[in-house]
Amino acid sequence: MAPKINKTAVLIGAGNLATHLGKALQAKGIEILQVYSRTEHSASSLAESLNTQFTTSLNNVNPNADYYFVCVKDDAIAEIVEAMPEVKGIVMHTSGSIEIDALQKFEKSAVFYPLQTFSKNKEYLNFEAVPLCLEANSDIIFNEVKQLACLLSSNIQQANSKQRKTIHLAAVFACNFSNQLFAIAASLLKEQNLNFSLLYPLIDETVAKIKTVSPDEAQTGPAKRKDFISMEKHLELLKEKPQLAEIYKLLSEIIMKK
Amino acid sequence: MAPKINKTAVLIGAGNLATHLGKALQAKGIEILQVYSRTEHSASSLAESLNTQFTTSLNNVNPNADYYFVCVKDDAIAEIVEAMPEVKGIVMHTSGSIEIDALQKFEKSAVFYPLQTFSKNKEYLNFEAVPLCLEANSDIIFNEVKQLACLLSSNIQQANSKQRKTIHLAAVFACNFSNQLFAIAASLLKEQNLNFSLLYPLIDETVAKIKTVSPDEAQTGPAKRKDFISMEKHLELLKEKPQLAEIYKLLSEIIMKK
Repeated sequence: MAPKINKTAVLIGAGNLATHLGKALQAKGIEILQVYSRTEHSASSLAESLNTQFTTSLNNVNPNADYYFVCVKDDAIAEIVEAMPEVKGIVMHTSGSIEIDALQKFEKSAVFYPLQTFSKNKEYLNFEAVPLCLEANSDIIFNEVKQLACLLSSNIQQANSKQRKTIHLAAVFACNFSNQLFAIAASLLKEQNLNFSLLYPLIDETVAKIKTVSPDEAQTGPAKRKDFISMEKHLELLKEKPQLAEIYKLLSEIIMKK
Repeated sequence: MAPKINKTAVLIGAGNLATHLGKALQAKGIEILQVYSRTEHSASSLAESLNTQFTTSLNNVNPNADYYFVCVKDDAIAEIVEAMPEVKGIVMHTSGSIEIDALQKFEKSAVFYPLQTFSKNKEYLNFEAVPLCLEANSDIIFNEVKQLACLLSSNIQQANSKQRKTIHLAAVFACNFSNQLFAIAASLLKEQNLNFSLLYPLIDETVAKIKTVSPDEAQTGPAKRKDFISMEKHLELLKEKPQLAEIYKLLSEIIMKK
């Protein structure tokens, strides 16, 4: 059983992040009072798995919680904030790219940005090593949010709005785009009846290397070697995949220029 | 001490791959007879670390070894092959993108393509999990090369020329290009006085996910969510980095199209 710490939270949103955050908060003894989602199915199923209430109307959001986590798409935040009632606790959004000012209607506001990728279908994500990037509209609120964050993770980073945007952008390159490159590799292999798992050792080694030397120092491959024969052959293989050829050329140019 | 297995090898080339391969072969009891490199410094320093002879002249390559590993840039292979003497053993190149026919002047030829990224400065690379992609100019030679490969690794893949080219191309996307995305992320963070290590948990989770679900299923991020506000903000941050903006747009388009 998680220890009770007499703090309560409301989740605004019922997607991947809300799901993982709700479970992690609950595991640390924070009571989830309510889940809001405009989609009844999403709201009810997350509420059920957290054994709590749900609502599909922002008017009905419980105003007495200590923490409100706004876990919705960035382009839905403004609308949600406008429709939310006044509340007692700290309202936090969880977005990498939205300013804290988006929450200025609330007396106590903060940003609670977990630098991690979330999937609903993954059983339980351990927040312990997840960097939590924090910002608040006052020092007092910052300290309160920091204490909350410390319950979940040992990796706390104060980041102002400009820094957080850069972190988010860097994460898109390092994570979302790398993942897409993995997807491209998998589809190329599949066409030749080869299994993507063939690349696991290579991917593992690539990731291990960037932790011992910088990615710039770790760079290898045809572009790094200026091996034009290989590059031409690769572009020949990609001649019916113009978008992939374009990515190939661009990334190779960047590598060669360094 | 490594067991003696009474086989001998010559390394043609003294770069990252020759270094790791030489050490791995030696550790398995194969005697390295000689190292060739046209650069005396490279040849002598690898020969010294392997406690063997070196030459900078292909005329002087020892013709009596069992195995010859051609570990040079792809665009140097043809020239090297032409200048090499007739030899007794199996001549193997180690390239992902060169046809086995490049070695047709030799009676016994094969391709020995380790699907891994090699850096000289990394102490010792364990080949055990490195997929070795093999092809040979006859079944007899294939079996001999396969036995040799089995000494080093448990992950043996027979791959014809077309498949090997595709493996190489897929590896460029999954490894070399991912690494460059990591380098881009690191430089963006550095501009904001943030440490690249902030992204390690995210990168680890990204790689862990593709082994449990496919990369396509694992895809997250602004493009996947069609979160145009975030994407516009990111492009704004990249407005003085046109090449990065271009990569951002291209990869986002591919993700959105799926």
